Amino acid sequence: MADKAAPTPRPGGRSASVLASVKAAVEELIAENGRERVTIPMVAERAGVQPSSVYRRWGDLATMINDVATYRLDPARPIATTGDLRTDLVSWASDIVRHYSVPVNAAMLRGGAASAGENESDCLRNRRAEAATLLAPADDDWLTVDRVVDHLVAPIIYRVIFLPWTLDDSIAGQLVADLFALRTAAPAN
Amino acid sequence: MADKAAPTPRPGGRSASVLASVKAAVEELIAENGRERVTIPMVAERAGVQPSSVYRRWGDLATMINDVATYRLDPARPIATTGDLRTDLVSWASDIVRHYSVPVNAAMLRGGAASAGENESDCLRNRRAEAATLLAPADDDWLTVDRVVDHLVAPIIYRVIFLPWTLDDSIAGQLVADLFALRTAAPAN
Repeated sequence: MADKAAPTPRPGGRSASVLASVKAAVEELIAENGRERVTIPMVAERAGVQPSSVYRRWGDLATMINDVATYRLDPARPIATTGDLRTDLVSWASDIVRHYSVPVNAAMLRGGAASAGENESDCLRNRRAEAATLLAPADDDWLTVDRVVDHLVAPIIYRVIFLPWTLDDSIAGQLVADLFALRTAAPAN
Repeated sequence: MADKAAPTPRPGGRSASVLASVKAAVEELIAENGRERVTIPMVAERAGVQPSSVYRRWGDLATMINDVATYRLDPARPIATTGDLRTDLVSWASDIVRHYSVPVNAAMLRGGAASAGENESDCLRNRRAEAATLLAPADDDWLTVDRVVDHLVAPIIYRVIFLPWTLDDSIAGQLVADLFALRTAAPAN
């Protein structure tokens, strides 16, 4: 919450402006070409900075992209809780679908997939925590966080990565309806 | 099924040996570093060929990797059909889990995810065709290929990409059990 900042030069000013240009360049280039075809020289040219400044600051491309890109769903965003679990899950899943319907967010997810697999990503950990918060009041033994990940998060993310043209407004409701049919399944282990 | 090939030079011999070395180099480097960190100079060095031969033949890295890597499940492999749909789906899903438990196959899938999203990949199209073949004799209106993709293929692929340490022998059976609980759900649209 900065008070009206005086327009005098301050330490970090140049650095903040480089960061902002690099960030904008990365997001544009990823949306245009996919993360796989973005290189540091391309980013530097688009941002109007020397490639050496990019290398000096971030070392390599993967580090830079992870640092500057805002492809994450804000974990501090408000989560709707009406008290009806089914309604709340549909609205939570619809948020995820909407977020990844923005091409740069989908492109960043695809890029993130390429380097995933060693630890749970922040992004996935945040979704898992949100699911746990939504499920907590219900405390049903058939409805576990793992089942929400397998049958609601996974099909959405799979469609975002591999079948983006199948993402529409009805997907969240349809998957939650399927999830609720598991009430009659054997308890999850 | 080559008969004892005469050890005389033949057209394509040099080219076939370059292809074999490049293929081995790509698979080793991807398994070691992840597809994102593999470059053409690294591949050329490991394969013992000039980078220019690689550029001349394939043009760029993504084209080369897609051309040489054998990360696909062979679409001509035998699919078990016992006549019991549930048993057959478990064995089909277990094949997919087993295939992607091999680190180079998982690394290639993650790399493929990075460039996915414009058309259905061959790999996904093959899995969808296999699911359709398995489902055909049953002809149940609750069990559609889309549901098999959402609730069986997607959670497996999601775990391969983001949570590989959760893949174990029980996953396929567990997901198929959940899928069969959808019998009581509203028909899929």
